[in-house]
Amino acid sequence: MLKAEIIAIGSELLTPYRSDTNSLWLTQRLNSVGIDVHQKTIVGDDEARMEDAVKSALSRSDVVISTGGLGPTEDDLTRKVFARVTGRQLLLDYAVLEEIRERFASRGYKMTPNNERQALVPAGATVLSNPNGSAPGVKMEHDGRLIVLLPGPPRENQPMFDTFVMPELERISRGVRLARRVLKVTGLGESHLDDLIAPIYTEYSNPVTTILFTDSEVEIHLTATSDSYSRAEELATELTDKLVEKLGYYVYTTTGELLEEVIGAGLRKREMTLATAESCTGGLVAERITRVPGSSDYFVGGMVTYSNDAKNSLLGVPKEMIEELGPVSGEVAEAMARGVRQRSGATVGISVTGVAGPGGGTDAVPVGTVYVGLADDVVSGNRRLVLGGDRHLIRWRASTAALEMVRRRYLV
Amino acid sequence: MLKAEIIAIGSELLTPYRSDTNSLWLTQRLNSVGIDVHQKTIVGDDEARMEDAVKSALSRSDVVISTGGLGPTEDDLTRKVFARVTGRQLLLDYAVLEEIRERFASRGYKMTPNNERQALVPAGATVLSNPNGSAPGVKMEHDGRLIVLLPGPPRENQPMFDTFVMPELERISRGVRLARRVLKVTGLGESHLDDLIAPIYTEYSNPVTTILFTDSEVEIHLTATSDSYSRAEELATELTDKLVEKLGYYVYTTTGELLEEVIGAGLRKREMTLATAESCTGGLVAERITRVPGSSDYFVGGMVTYSNDAKNSLLGVPKEMIEELGPVSGEVAEAMARGVRQRSGATVGISVTGVAGPGGGTDAVPVGTVYVGLADDVVSGNRRLVLGGDRHLIRWRASTAALEMVRRRYLV
Repeated sequence: MLKAEIIAIGSELLTPYRSDTNSLWLTQRLNSVGIDVHQKTIVGDDEARMEDAVKSALSRSDVVISTGGLGPTEDDLTRKVFARVTGRQLLLDYAVLEEIRERFASRGYKMTPNNERQALVPAGATVLSNPNGSAPGVKMEHDGRLIVLLPGPPRENQPMFDTFVMPELERISRGVRLARRVLKVTGLGESHLDDLIAPIYTEYSNPVTTILFTDSEVEIHLTATSDSYSRAEELATELTDKLVEKLGYYVYTTTGELLEEVIGAGLRKREMTLATAESCTGGLVAERITRVPGSSDYFVGGMVTYSNDAKNSLLGVPKEMIEELGPVSGEVAEAMARGVRQRSGATVGISVTGVAGPGGGTDAVPVGTVYVGLADDVVSGNRRLVLGGDRHLIRWRASTAALEMVRRRYLV
Repeated sequence: MLKAEIIAIGSELLTPYRSDTNSLWLTQRLNSVGIDVHQKTIVGDDEARMEDAVKSALSRSDVVISTGGLGPTEDDLTRKVFARVTGRQLLLDYAVLEEIRERFASRGYKMTPNNERQALVPAGATVLSNPNGSAPGVKMEHDGRLIVLLPGPPRENQPMFDTFVMPELERISRGVRLARRVLKVTGLGESHLDDLIAPIYTEYSNPVTTILFTDSEVEIHLTATSDSYSRAEELATELTDKLVEKLGYYVYTTTGELLEEVIGAGLRKREMTLATAESCTGGLVAERITRVPGSSDYFVGGMVTYSNDAKNSLLGVPKEMIEELGPVSGEVAEAMARGVRQRSGATVGISVTGVAGPGGGTDAVPVGTVYVGLADDVVSGNRRLVLGGDRHLIRWRASTAALEMVRRRYLV
C-alpha cells in the first residue's frame, strides 16, 4: 500500500486559533484510492524547518502533499523549499504569469509585482491551474515519489486536487482498495471492552483495528485493504460480524452514526414519539436529539426542571416525594418521566436528575450521582449511575445514559 | 524565546474523522508564558515513525510535549518510544499501580491486567497523577530539554498540564512576562468591527492584537509582553480601555468569560430569575445557561416545545395564533416567553422559534428565519433574525441572540 504524508505550511497554524483542516479532506480522498496517510506535519513559514520536514517526508513516503505557502508574499516559501530539496531551479513560467495577469485584469485590477512570484515553477514540474484563486498548484515526480503543492484555501485546493491529482493517484495506487467500518459501543468500560475483543481483532492484520475512547463511548475503527472493493468489503464485514457477535447490543452502529441518529431512526420506524424531562443535564438530552434534522417526526418536546418547584408545578412530581426521597432519587426520576410523557402526549418519556457538580454534592448523594428514568404507557423504570469527570463530562455521560435507556428498552 | 514542539500520537488522528485539537489549547498555555510552538507532528501508533518524530523534535526544540498513546492497550506505545529514545529503562511504579487499582476499586471494578502497562514509567521520570482518568502523565528532562507525555483526552490532560507543567514552564521561560486580554463582542459584523477598531490597535505593536471570528461572536485577543508582569498588565489595560471605549456595550467581557457566565452573574446580582421556551434550538439555550456551575441560583427551568401542540398545551400559546400567524412569528415567540414565565414563576422568560433547516423552509419563512422573544412582568417583545449557516450554526446563533436579548435589556 502506498504511503502518503501531508505537510501543512503556515505560521497561523501554530497559534491557538487555527488548526489544519485541509488534511481531513485530503485523507478521505487518499484513502478512497487505497493510499494511507502515515504522518502529518505542521510547520510555520520558516525555511529551515520546512526544508527538514520536506526532506524527511520524501525519505519515507510515496506521496507528499503540501498545503499553503504558495501566495505572493515573502513568507510564502513552499515553491522555493521544494525546488531546493529536489535540486531544481525555479523558472518563471510565462504562460502562468499571463494567466495571473488576466485574472487580475478581468476583475478590473492591475497585477502587483509581488504576484509574479506565483508564476515561479520548479523546473520539470507540472503547473496546476487555479480557477478559484491566483496561486497555481504544482505537481512533480522526484525519485519515484509524487509531490503535490496545493494552495491553502479549501475552495481552491479541493477542485484542483480532484481535477489534476486524483486521476494520477488512481493510476499509481496499483489497485489497492479500502473498506472502512466504524463500530460505536456504549455502556462497556474501556479495558473490559479490550479484554473481550482483543482475542478477536489481534487475529487479523487486515483489517487494521484502531480503538478510540471518547467521553462516553468507544469507537472501533476497522480498515480493510484488498485489490478489489468487494474483497475489501468482505474482509471488513467478516471482522465486523465477529465483533458484533461478541459485543451484542453494546454496539449501536457499525457505520459511524451518532447515537441520536440511531435512536431517531428507530423511533421513526416504530412510529414512537419521545419527550424529555431534565434536571442536571439542563436541556442537553433534548438538544442532542434535535441536532438531527427531521427530529420533529418523533420528538414532541421537553422540560428542563431545574428547581424542585418546577419539578412539581411543570411535571407534577409530588412535593412530598421530593421532600422525603430528595430530588436526586429513582422515584423522582420515574415521576419526571411519567409527568412529561403525560403532559406532552408522547409515547415515551425519559428523564435525568442528578448532581453534576462541582457544588451540591453530599455524603449520601455525591457529585456524579445521576438517575435516569423512563416511562411508557405500561411501565416506568429508573437506573442509578455514578459518573466520573467534571461538570461537563457528567452532564454528557448522563445524557448518553438517558438516550441509551431508550435504545436498550425499545430498539434492540 | 524557548521553542516548543507538539507531537500528537494516535492512528485515529490520521483518518478523515479526527484531527488533533489538543495542540490549540497547549499552544495557548505555552504562549502565555512566552514559549512559541515551532512545529506540530501527528503520527500513528507506529513505533518507527514515532521514534523518528521524537528524535527530530528533541534535536531542535527546548520543550517537547506529546499527547495520546498512554492507554492500556497494545498500540499505546508512547512510554516505550520515549524511554528508548532517551536511553532509559521502563520501570513498574508500584505507587502508580496501586493508585490505578484503587481507582478501579472505588467504582466497583476490578483492574484488568492490561492496565498494569499504565504504571510503567521511564527511569528517572516524574509521574503526573491523573484524577480524571487511569493513564498518568510523565515529565522528564533530557539533555536540557523538557519532555512531557500527556494522555489524549482534554479533560485529563488540561488539569494535569496546568497543575504539573505550567509552574515548571514559568520557571524555565526566563523572565518573559505576558499579559493577555480576551474581549468578546457580539452583534457587530466582522468588517464593520474592523473598520471601527483597526485605527486603534494598529497603533500598537505591543500588545499584539489578533482578531478571531467564531460562530456567533468576535474575539479580540491582546497579548502584551514585558520583563515584568505589572508593565505587561499596564500595556494590556491601556489598549483594552481604548477598545472598550470605542465599542461600548457590544463588548460583553474583557476577560474571556462566556456570554452565559456574564448573564448569570448579572442575573444573580439583580436577584432576577430566568426561564426558557425553545422550539428550533431544541434545548440549547437552557443547556448553555446550565453549563455554568451554580446556575440553579437564577435559572428556574425551560420547555422545549417542538410541535405546535406542545406550544399550545405546555406554554398556552393560543392555537388560533399559531394557525393564523404560523409557529415562526414574533407573536408566537412573545407568547412562548410569556407562557414559560408565567408557568415557571421566573421574573423573565425568553423564547426562540425558527427554522433551523435543512428542511422546513418556505418562500415566506426561509431556513434561517428565527424570532427571539422576551417577557417580564411589565412588557414583552420580540426580534426577527435571518441567520446564515447550516443547522448547527443557525441553532447556535439563535441561542446567542436569545441570551444577548437578556443582556441588552437588563444587564447593560
